[in-house]
Amino acid sequence: MKYISSPHNALIRYAEQLQRKSKTRKKEGQFLIEGQREIQLARAGNFEMTQVLVCSEILLGREDFEPAQVRKQLTLEENTDIIAVSSEVYEKLAYRSGTEGCIAFAKAKNPHLSQLHLSNAPLILIAESPEKPGNIGALLRTADAANIDAVIIVDPVSDLYNPNVIRSSVGCVFTVPTAIASAADTIAFLKSNDINLYAATLQSSENYDRMDFTTATAIAVGTEATGLSKHLRDAAKTNIIIPMGGAIDSMNVSVSAAVLLFEAKRQRGFG
Amino acid sequence: MKYISSPHNALIRYAEQLQRKSKTRKKEGQFLIEGQREIQLARAGNFEMTQVLVCSEILLGREDFEPAQVRKQLTLEENTDIIAVSSEVYEKLAYRSGTEGCIAFAKAKNPHLSQLHLSNAPLILIAESPEKPGNIGALLRTADAANIDAVIIVDPVSDLYNPNVIRSSVGCVFTVPTAIASAADTIAFLKSNDINLYAATLQSSENYDRMDFTTATAIAVGTEATGLSKHLRDAAKTNIIIPMGGAIDSMNVSVSAAVLLFEAKRQRGFG
Repeated sequence: MKYISSPHNALIRYAEQLQRKSKTRKKEGQFLIEGQREIQLARAGNFEMTQVLVCSEILLGREDFEPAQVRKQLTLEENTDIIAVSSEVYEKLAYRSGTEGCIAFAKAKNPHLSQLHLSNAPLILIAESPEKPGNIGALLRTADAANIDAVIIVDPVSDLYNPNVIRSSVGCVFTVPTAIASAADTIAFLKSNDINLYAATLQSSENYDRMDFTTATAIAVGTEATGLSKHLRDAAKTNIIIPMGGAIDSMNVSVSAAVLLFEAKRQRGFG
Repeated sequence: MKYISSPHNALIRYAEQLQRKSKTRKKEGQFLIEGQREIQLARAGNFEMTQVLVCSEILLGREDFEPAQVRKQLTLEENTDIIAVSSEVYEKLAYRSGTEGCIAFAKAKNPHLSQLHLSNAPLILIAESPEKPGNIGALLRTADAANIDAVIIVDPVSDLYNPNVIRSSVGCVFTVPTAIASAADTIAFLKSNDINLYAATLQSSENYDRMDFTTATAIAVGTEATGLSKHLRDAAKTNIIIPMGGAIDSMNVSVSAAVLLFEAKRQRGFG
């Protein structure tokens, strides 16, 4: 088994680039996954992993270890390379505090609308241009909890495999069916699948709880700063609003999405 | 008007302590408020401000200014001291990026249950021991949007005037009626006011949407890690759950609180 003790090793420097730069992730079609649960969830989501860096003092509490044992613990395939790294190397790469001694190189997916498998009366969340990686992660976590059919991210500002998306999604980025698309393609997709679009917006809107979300439904949310684009608002069956009554009158986008999605789930009897 | 150009000035060092240390905030009964909107919201919430540091290049775009004009802009009282500071001093103190050139010294409130003014059929959020300042802020923002009667924070880990609570609440910490209390005092308060307690928990729980939240209602949420204490669970009329169906089966505490509070609002017709 290979052992890397120097932070200046070429593979480690490559890993750093993958972690820091969206451009490198896109060019290489690779990204990093940190943490035991995250790696297991990515495996459950059929992500392919080529190599896994293991700091055994942290992962196993001892220096010696068998690669086969780590593969089993992390539910990896038999041909996945296990590379031991020193704690110095690991600490340099680790993105989170309190991490678990394992970082995988994974192949990015390029999720298209055509790859989504929808149920008879699907429930879909559309997020337009979410700015912050933390917000994308939080939306995916909400989508996982509500167990909806899919999340469509329209014109995202950051890529799906940003370390902060992975972290704030607590791994749901690997398990929630997700597609990335333009607004035009998304609207065409909804039309061709007879899915009603509801746009969360402040302009001439109806209260969300008066809608019937039991048929094929997509709920679109925009950014906290600028809301949804005219393109999506115009394509909506109805513009909907969550009535608010406070001093600020705004909610975090993942909180708004949760209120809307769970109203749909409630109407559907949480089936 | 006083002008401070040195970051080593005694008042500036005191301000730094207030910002960094919960202990100093508690001992002095003071805290800092940064940003124009936050100061205005704190004024609307009747917080007393003794002094305001102003970096006029940032706040007004020029060096010369009249204190009276700044007082008007920030809705301050006439006896509030305005102290001009250099941008070096301001940048040292500023907690957020993209801030607005004003930082106020404000007097902390010590909010007790007895100070809450409740409506006929109040809706109350109880948050037990929220760990992260960001979660407390997010809960307060949700409470503001839902326009509920009060938030009771049971045995908080961090203080209410932590800069990150203020920031993540987008100022709602100043406008949402809030009390801090022990679990025992909270339970006694609910009993004496005939308020039904619903405990969000995973143990032998009923779906939240089957409850009648139209009468006097308090909804309690615990931490993501350990949930609610037995004390609060045992005092509940019913333990409630949000049915989830994903790979992770957990939501951020402020997201869960929003789903529960807006179901109550929906039942009440958003009145």
